[in-house]
Amino acid sequence: MSGTDNFPPLLDKAITEISRLPGIGRKTALRLALHLLRRPVTEADALSNAISELRHGVGYCPECHNITTASETCAICANPMRDHSTICVVETVRDVLSIESTGQYGGVYHVLGGVISPLDGIGPDVLEIDSLAERASSGTVKEIIMGLSPTMEGDTTCFYLYRKIAAAVTAHGVKMPSVTQLARGVAVGNELEYTDELTLGRSLQARTAYNDGINGN
Amino acid sequence: MSGTDNFPPLLDKAITEISRLPGIGRKTALRLALHLLRRPVTEADALSNAISELRHGVGYCPECHNITTASETCAICANPMRDHSTICVVETVRDVLSIESTGQYGGVYHVLGGVISPLDGIGPDVLEIDSLAERASSGTVKEIIMGLSPTMEGDTTCFYLYRKIAAAVTAHGVKMPSVTQLARGVAVGNELEYTDELTLGRSLQARTAYNDGINGN
Repeated sequence: MSGTDNFPPLLDKAITEISRLPGIGRKTALRLALHLLRRPVTEADALSNAISELRHGVGYCPECHNITTASETCAICANPMRDHSTICVVETVRDVLSIESTGQYGGVYHVLGGVISPLDGIGPDVLEIDSLAERASSGTVKEIIMGLSPTMEGDTTCFYLYRKIAAAVTAHGVKMPSVTQLARGVAVGNELEYTDELTLGRSLQARTAYNDGINGN
Repeated sequence: MSGTDNFPPLLDKAITEISRLPGIGRKTALRLALHLLRRPVTEADALSNAISELRHGVGYCPECHNITTASETCAICANPMRDHSTICVVETVRDVLSIESTGQYGGVYHVLGGVISPLDGIGPDVLEIDSLAERASSGTVKEIIMGLSPTMEGDTTCFYLYRKIAAAVTAHGVKMPSVTQLARGVAVGNELEYTDELTLGRSLQARTAYNDGINGN
């Protein structure tokens, strides 16, 4: 950025660090830095401390790889009220948040850290796949829900996971858990005319009995 | 945000602090926080320190109110090569950056901190207007360039500034500096058909002699 030669080096350093964040360029970083300069010192200190404490105080659950207070099992895995025989496999921590906000799931999770995507350089070895196969073959897991995105990468990952789990289960001599996936169909609240043909076709094939919500038929 | 109950309090705190920044909501703040968790500790520390050092180490120039290393005159005001008899009045520090990047200005600045905008609760008293009138009436200033936005608020502020400066100059018994404003007209590189009528009308009224850039006529 030209014109910054006359600016204090501390501002330039702050712009550089802020613009390392995803989706934030140098122009936005400058705007944010100037905003912080106009606000009380306490506000910038609070932000600075929150970032530092976040990175030092938050780690990953050794069980499910969800985020948690450092070196502790996460609140979901530590909760005895949750069904530990059902594992929902998701890509990211954000997906845990999304599924939790539905209030429909009482089991535990397994955060993979992404999906297999050779084009992006993400192979099976950088994902938490071995630990999933290990959990699945402990003998106590009854169901594994594949909560991955319905994309080509998600489907490929599901296929790979299934084979890995089956191999681990066989090696340990335990029963294969039932493996399920999220229902695919038309999105609730969407206009049918804007639903793509593939989704519409599949939702026709996988049609379910009508329930009027009163008679429970 | 529902579903965060099972999340570490430090994450919630970081989201709250990050989402105080302008244009960043809780969803984006969560994305940024999770990004920091995936990156090395050194990167989060560098960001945290840069923010803290920025706020504590950067202040405002007592002369022109541009940002500078705390309790020092800014690099532009301290530069003896700049023309201190010409002051360009701008709204914000970002405008200093914009004008500096043109490489066309050799004078000094005066950062108002905004423009008069009663609807936004910005009155003349929160802006650096008195200090400008004081500088203008020192007797050494020859020209004051109004580098404000060509908006209603900018024009109102120019009008107010002119009267303030004139009054201060009279009170001090010095010569009134010449007051100029940025040329208004069609933007360089813009299609004429997309220029608004007001700008086009004014640029016709204020047309200038054609210069072919070779003969210098």
